[in-house]
Amino acid sequence: MTDETPTAVQYGIGPIGSRIASAAHRTGFEFVGAVDIDPEKIGADLGDIAGFDEQVGVEVTDDVEAALATNPDVVFHSTVSDVEAALPQLAEIADSGANIVSTTEELAYPEWAAPEAAAELDDVATEHGVTILGTGINPGFVMDAMPAYLSTPMERVDQVTVKRVQDAATRREPLQRKVGAGVSVDTFEAEIATEAGHVGSTESVAMLGDALGLGIEEIEETIEPVIADERVETEYLTVDADDVAGIRQVARGRVDGEARILLELHMYVGADDPRDEVHFDSDPPVSVTVDGGYHGDVSTAAVVANVAPTVIDADPGRRSMTDLIPAFTREA
Amino acid sequence: MTDETPTAVQYGIGPIGSRIASAAHRTGFEFVGAVDIDPEKIGADLGDIAGFDEQVGVEVTDDVEAALATNPDVVFHSTVSDVEAALPQLAEIADSGANIVSTTEELAYPEWAAPEAAAELDDVATEHGVTILGTGINPGFVMDAMPAYLSTPMERVDQVTVKRVQDAATRREPLQRKVGAGVSVDTFEAEIATEAGHVGSTESVAMLGDALGLGIEEIEETIEPVIADERVETEYLTVDADDVAGIRQVARGRVDGEARILLELHMYVGADDPRDEVHFDSDPPVSVTVDGGYHGDVSTAAVVANVAPTVIDADPGRRSMTDLIPAFTREA
Repeated sequence: MTDETPTAVQYGIGPIGSRIASAAHRTGFEFVGAVDIDPEKIGADLGDIAGFDEQVGVEVTDDVEAALATNPDVVFHSTVSDVEAALPQLAEIADSGANIVSTTEELAYPEWAAPEAAAELDDVATEHGVTILGTGINPGFVMDAMPAYLSTPMERVDQVTVKRVQDAATRREPLQRKVGAGVSVDTFEAEIATEAGHVGSTESVAMLGDALGLGIEEIEETIEPVIADERVETEYLTVDADDVAGIRQVARGRVDGEARILLELHMYVGADDPRDEVHFDSDPPVSVTVDGGYHGDVSTAAVVANVAPTVIDADPGRRSMTDLIPAFTREA
Repeated sequence: MTDETPTAVQYGIGPIGSRIASAAHRTGFEFVGAVDIDPEKIGADLGDIAGFDEQVGVEVTDDVEAALATNPDVVFHSTVSDVEAALPQLAEIADSGANIVSTTEELAYPEWAAPEAAAELDDVATEHGVTILGTGINPGFVMDAMPAYLSTPMERVDQVTVKRVQDAATRREPLQRKVGAGVSVDTFEAEIATEAGHVGSTESVAMLGDALGLGIEEIEETIEPVIADERVETEYLTVDADDVAGIRQVARGRVDGEARILLELHMYVGADDPRDEVHFDSDPPVSVTVDGGYHGDVSTAAVVANVAPTVIDADPGRRSMTDLIPAFTREA
């Protein structure tokens, strides 16, 4: 990156987009545009909407073309989880010549589940000379890039288990509702289960598996409710004993039927001892614990802001977080 | 790296060099040369000397020029800790056109303590189109590159403390003797203290400080004996109660007189709960523990073997481990 102040557009100013814009503002990006479709945000100053401590003279607009006409160095994109849904937005940004750091979960490593979208984005990025990266705390760090990096001092890795335990009570209300906190088990099974899960586990398994050269052949995700032992109250809702407190979601990456990567996400209200754990069955064996765990929203914003200068400087193409730590990518 | 098998020369076949050669042999490097000055090793097969499970048809020689004439892709260099002492060896290797991964501790980040050697090595590497990297588990990973990488999800880092506690009883005899295990406190003060320390703490402070953009102004190292509470026996020696069990070495990187980086190495026989801990005073705050700690010798060999393909592919110049994770290098 040159010594000039890098310029940015924020595309999507929801809870995560606001945090990203705030973090990037504080770490030295100059915002030159801001896009959202919410009529209540359009026309307001980005600083007010995203919670900066000052206005920045940038009006939120729903006119993407106008925002991109400012020629930013990078666009922070935070709109949807689905890479197919994000594709037209990402293509339009790349077409304008801007680099992209996006929190679209499936973009973190689309090779496995969306190989056509992955190839199309790589083509459009290369054609326009820009870099596209999908990232965040998860997918993008805790369950994929961080374990890959922590494996640097291991000659051989046979199996990796990552366990992320989060107390949903410390998170936003929509996330508490999404994991089914407070509903009955019947309601969970009927209405919640299929939508309750974290998006990105398959992508994390594929990214980590490829980085470690494990040759993963099959990825399976399961989700089940965690039942409350006792009544728990959060700022937003109440969970009675025997009702659903949240979820336990497991993604397995298999080789010859055997799970070589196991990613467990426990996300429920009242979870004791929140933490991120990584256990390597490796030579030498290693276990790492992040006490308390990396915070979901705050850390996602920091990852996005911190990697952006590298994305601006990187060779054109679609990249994943493990591409940025090439030292530690092994042959299958 | 191309799909062809990469070729390597092992330069220095002591305990660490042997482990490096073994790890690289197992991970797919083809050895084409081996250098050591020990008359007992010269003429023997590298596989026998370095403990491979097979001979490899490579004779150990003290003729550096002949070994380098094999034109290896990379030379694994493991001879001395001092970068000034290593410089002529490194320059000769670079001059032959080979990339270098070295365990010379001061080479991990010579910018601070040996800026002239750092500049000279960068010049010679650039001139000959090769890459030179100093690495290992410490310096090179646990106290510098790993904490830098773990800071990715933090918007701001004010202070970092790394504490590495190792039970010296699990390490080689020379290392147990080096840290003074078994000597009296008087003998330690008179004969051991100045040579007992781990080499590389200053380099780790400087590397981590620069990666985090902390603007470190001053680096100080202290070393003191750890006194045994009770008698401890190792495979090689006995420590009586009230004698020296090993060392506690602390390196501090200061800004305005305040320690912003604190690296503590506890290396003594009988240490309970060996581990690597990293505490970030940051937003958000994070503490990470590696249960048991990364093993010194095994992990150094794995780091060297694992980063070698990236060193072979990297742009010419002298590099440090944090250069390989550019996403996470911040402005001062």
